[in-house]
Amino acid sequence: MGAEQDARERLEKDIETIAGFTETDPWVGHSRPTFSPSWRSARDYVEREASAHSCLVRVDAAGNLHARPARLGWDRPAWLCGSHLDSVPTGGKFDGVVGVVVALEVLRAEPRADVELIVFAEEEGTTFNLGMLGSRAWTGDVGVEKLRALRNGAGRDYIDAGAAHGVAPGRLEAERLRPSDYLGLIETHVEQGPGLWNSGEAVAVVTAIAGRRQYLCTLQGEANHAGATRMSGRRDALAGAAEAVLGLEALARELERKNGHTVITVGRLDVEPNALNVIPGRVTFSVDFRARTNGEIAEGAARVRELLSRVAAERGLGMELAATEEVPAVPLDPGVCGRLRDASRRLGLTVTDTASGALHDTAIIAPLLPAAMLFIASKGGISHNPAEFSRIEDIACAARIVAEAVMA
Amino acid sequence: MGAEQDARERLEKDIETIAGFTETDPWVGHSRPTFSPSWRSARDYVEREASAHSCLVRVDAAGNLHARPARLGWDRPAWLCGSHLDSVPTGGKFDGVVGVVVALEVLRAEPRADVELIVFAEEEGTTFNLGMLGSRAWTGDVGVEKLRALRNGAGRDYIDAGAAHGVAPGRLEAERLRPSDYLGLIETHVEQGPGLWNSGEAVAVVTAIAGRRQYLCTLQGEANHAGATRMSGRRDALAGAAEAVLGLEALARELERKNGHTVITVGRLDVEPNALNVIPGRVTFSVDFRARTNGEIAEGAARVRELLSRVAAERGLGMELAATEEVPAVPLDPGVCGRLRDASRRLGLTVTDTASGALHDTAIIAPLLPAAMLFIASKGGISHNPAEFSRIEDIACAARIVAEAVMA
Repeated sequence: MGAEQDARERLEKDIETIAGFTETDPWVGHSRPTFSPSWRSARDYVEREASAHSCLVRVDAAGNLHARPARLGWDRPAWLCGSHLDSVPTGGKFDGVVGVVVALEVLRAEPRADVELIVFAEEEGTTFNLGMLGSRAWTGDVGVEKLRALRNGAGRDYIDAGAAHGVAPGRLEAERLRPSDYLGLIETHVEQGPGLWNSGEAVAVVTAIAGRRQYLCTLQGEANHAGATRMSGRRDALAGAAEAVLGLEALARELERKNGHTVITVGRLDVEPNALNVIPGRVTFSVDFRARTNGEIAEGAARVRELLSRVAAERGLGMELAATEEVPAVPLDPGVCGRLRDASRRLGLTVTDTASGALHDTAIIAPLLPAAMLFIASKGGISHNPAEFSRIEDIACAARIVAEAVMA
Repeated sequence: MGAEQDARERLEKDIETIAGFTETDPWVGHSRPTFSPSWRSARDYVEREASAHSCLVRVDAAGNLHARPARLGWDRPAWLCGSHLDSVPTGGKFDGVVGVVVALEVLRAEPRADVELIVFAEEEGTTFNLGMLGSRAWTGDVGVEKLRALRNGAGRDYIDAGAAHGVAPGRLEAERLRPSDYLGLIETHVEQGPGLWNSGEAVAVVTAIAGRRQYLCTLQGEANHAGATRMSGRRDALAGAAEAVLGLEALARELERKNGHTVITVGRLDVEPNALNVIPGRVTFSVDFRARTNGEIAEGAARVRELLSRVAAERGLGMELAATEEVPAVPLDPGVCGRLRDASRRLGLTVTDTASGALHDTAIIAPLLPAAMLFIASKGGISHNPAEFSRIEDIACAARIVAEAVMA
């Protein structure tokens, strides 16, 4: 148990060190927007740790960090293992971070493993408003033009803001992911749902990732005086948005009863002019809709559109609905899933199968490489929240399974 | 008609000049937050115009501008006439401004009128989050401690931000409104509702001002991952707020059917963390409730509280409800109202009576001075919006009525 104790201590140190890199007070939550000073400090920490353990390190033109054992070199095929270090605003310590430190631990504990660690840039999409941007740019799913159009809160685009961190538009095409460089992808991640924690399991093999559609919806009413405008004379954009939020909630529940895992979330909502004595003239809100199969997604997307149009029409509001993201549901590779199950069995562990409601970089890579994921139990299912928690022993367990799987 | 043509031209020039002082592009709307450079430029313009027409000018310790004919001096009683120059964000050209320029026009057109022009500071409450702050500070309704607690968007309190504009906490008590200095108050204002415009009337006498209660409500749920958290496991603060918004809308309609003019508005709503893939953990929103009598206000306030508590309890959300403002309904002075009606009749005009759904500085002054208001028709009832419009001939008509009323 000495080696395992050491592994836990190393992983704990990694997680706490990275948690210390945050743009907000850790008591409020951990905030590492992509390309922020704290994000860079976290990536630099991982780079130093890998270098200290005889790894070669490079940043690709999309801003993703890669590290491989020097003895392996860049030319032989390797297992790609990693996740992301960027966080949602005031998020937790574990989301993304565990997948990176598990890969780091495999490199440290198993120097013979043919593993390439990756830190994907901008997975959350809360900095540049598009999720999994690092993997999308690496695979060519988004190009230079799109990267120039996506801006952070300070108004800087991905290429401009990322220049100091390795982003290089001129080399994007030449440095795209080449499937022949890899044996497959294994991403470890916290479950972000309560399933494993409630059933007392440490880890599970993820066999599919739900797809999602995201929209930005704008309802245009008429800003007017809150005291002098009678209820019957109002075109209140916020009242319309409220009806949409409740309608989407009811729709998600209906589809969940019929199809299983289905979620719809309005996470962002901005009111204009947002003044206490003015009837809201315009409200913009996001809609995030996820389901497990592409048939369910097509069905739900039509219902979302129908619902929003009806609410706008009934209240005499203008509506614009922009589809900002479409990610199909992704079945993961049965071979890699089997490899993870076999590795667990050899370590005396039994792991169950699960599906991911959340999207991950794996969903972007899976069409190009044999890919699977390992989920680690999340206390209470809480994530995107400073109260996010996973047990260090479960994280160490995932690291042993991954090491065993890639060595087989 | 030469004199009247001149008056229209002067009023038009006043309104357009003041409209040019804005922190935002006029195409987006007119924004003059209290103590901003554009607000000060507008006040300076009024000060220069008054000085150019033989007036004495001073700013009181609360930041309100006063101007009187030099021949009258500060010691003899005068009619107080005026309104405000601060605006809501991206508001219109007329709200507040017309009351100031009507007073200016009376001083210009009728040098024998015993009139004191006043520009009240921070009427809208959108800069320091409390409406009619200039009149409240002048009457002693709020004191130094409260003024130090109220902060603008830049975090500066009323006293600090107002120091360069005449605010002087040490002189507040000595410079309070003395009723013996005044014969009464007449405030001219745009109606901000569609009543007069739709019935083809230019102006009306306001015989009462509805009271209002304002609240800030915070619903506390649990921020969590939008993809991995099932609908049944959510405590979504925005879904709760949406239910509150729709419930308040239905409540206002019910009370309006029963009691006449009643409005409830949620004008401001802020979501945390406000990220597209995070279930909202906390939502803060304002509630603005107005009714014509104090009995109706007490009844409605109890219903608002009950509704918000029920929504929070049913969704397992924490709730904090702070009453941020209580202004009782105010009957205006029958004598001053009669004087305005008589003056109209002498000018060959018939004016109807109305009540104000919006609050005005007059509501703060009315307990201390005989007070009334004149409303000017608002096109389509639109206000707090760049599309706000009133006819220049109606504004000139109001100026003639006020001049005639104060000369009687």
